[in-house]
Amino acid sequence: MQEYIFINGQFVKSQEAKIHVTDLALLRGYGIFDFFRAINGKPIFMEDHLDRFENSARLMGLTIPANRVALRNIIQETIRLNPYPTLGIKMILTGGYSPDGYVPAEAPNLIVIGKPFTFKEPKQGLKLLSFAYQREIPAIKTLNYIVPIRLLPQLKAAQADDVLYYANNLISESSRSNIFIVKNQTIVTPQTGVLYGITRKHVLKVAAKHYAVEERDISLAEYWEADEVFTTGSTKRLLPIVQTDDVIFNKGKIGTITQHLQEAFLAYEKGVG
Amino acid sequence: MQEYIFINGQFVKSQEAKIHVTDLALLRGYGIFDFFRAINGKPIFMEDHLDRFENSARLMGLTIPANRVALRNIIQETIRLNPYPTLGIKMILTGGYSPDGYVPAEAPNLIVIGKPFTFKEPKQGLKLLSFAYQREIPAIKTLNYIVPIRLLPQLKAAQADDVLYYANNLISESSRSNIFIVKNQTIVTPQTGVLYGITRKHVLKVAAKHYAVEERDISLAEYWEADEVFTTGSTKRLLPIVQTDDVIFNKGKIGTITQHLQEAFLAYEKGVG
Repeated sequence: MQEYIFINGQFVKSQEAKIHVTDLALLRGYGIFDFFRAINGKPIFMEDHLDRFENSARLMGLTIPANRVALRNIIQETIRLNPYPTLGIKMILTGGYSPDGYVPAEAPNLIVIGKPFTFKEPKQGLKLLSFAYQREIPAIKTLNYIVPIRLLPQLKAAQADDVLYYANNLISESSRSNIFIVKNQTIVTPQTGVLYGITRKHVLKVAAKHYAVEERDISLAEYWEADEVFTTGSTKRLLPIVQTDDVIFNKGKIGTITQHLQEAFLAYEKGVG
Repeated sequence: MQEYIFINGQFVKSQEAKIHVTDLALLRGYGIFDFFRAINGKPIFMEDHLDRFENSARLMGLTIPANRVALRNIIQETIRLNPYPTLGIKMILTGGYSPDGYVPAEAPNLIVIGKPFTFKEPKQGLKLLSFAYQREIPAIKTLNYIVPIRLLPQLKAAQADDVLYYANNLISESSRSNIFIVKNQTIVTPQTGVLYGITRKHVLKVAAKHYAVEERDISLAEYWEADEVFTTGSTKRLLPIVQTDDVIFNKGKIGTITQHLQEAFLAYEKGVG
């Protein structure tokens, strides 16, 4: 199927979606993005993602060349032109074509990509490797993934799926998803040093209907003693983490509460999204 | 004058030098670069820059699609096609067209840009603003300049030229250049947490002919007490720093030793480059 990509005001055939090499994302990694899904043409938590995209732009000093109404229209057109049952929609905003290769341009570059998306749902649960790192500006969904991408060979060698970041003895997040622990029927997720995930937000809401929930610092020591661990994100929904380094959680199986929340969140997403 | 840019195996007119939006620098900031000058067709310290470019690529797990001989030929052709008296040459290597938007492609994208270059040589000396930050992977010349570019409005408001990074009470470097202090006729520059600048390397060599030189940690306290401060880089050569935050060095004028090294380095560059 011919796919289409929005780039600076118009939709073009995906193979023709190119940017000039003076773009500040290419030259200096300067840009933000956001990502969400549309299922059967219906965008999931779109307004949340637009809120965050606009906030990331503001915090980066970039002006999105489209207001909320225009962004919604671009997204609807992306969905119409790329009619996959499950579509992943990525909005990218860069520092534009910089006149000197460093200072952001007056006009940023806005790109919206729609691509078919498939959930990976490993039955075994995920394995993480802990890594001492704190994302530079955690509240902004910047383009900078140098550290975790550089770790991919190490993850592969350890047969791990992703990283668990920690700093100053506190855990924060994974490379592209938030982390939750369950201890004595209480659901806890870090409050600082993390990207405020949209799935995280809604899982907290769903969890609060059934359990005590806490947003606060989690030490590495507390993490190792968790009854269950799970991760949340737009590409994952809610997935169990059954191992981190050499520590196995819940005997390597998805926990009762994780499974309950997984089902409750899926029902919630279908009703709300 | 029509300029030409090398992109993945061929030279194209600069306005046609475009990459597809699935490039991993655009999507995830994943890439490295290097930059040097050619003066009247003669590349300055090219082998040093090629050493560093190859080392950055290796440390990022990227394979440059050109060996040393091929790279030299691309650079010579860049100079021939863009015959400016002073040419700035930027080599960029990205994670390529990623199949899934995260994992580097088997073939990275190699871009070489030649653009006219003018030295900025402020007579007054530079003013820096100190900022608590440590580049993530200091030894690699990655594309990630999110933090300093985001600080540009703050620098402008303070009428400052650039930043001075420090962490754990030690200074490291500026956004795109190395830092040296002069104290009691001794030249000192930080040894860890910095990019090993090519100009830094040669200035150390030149300085050692005339002064005691030390590569070691420099505390903020020591920095504030410096007799003279200067910065080095390929776009700056050697420039005095006469102020950082509210502290003025050498009564706001270029210091005797800084001036001496500036002249000595210029003569050295002309002889060696």
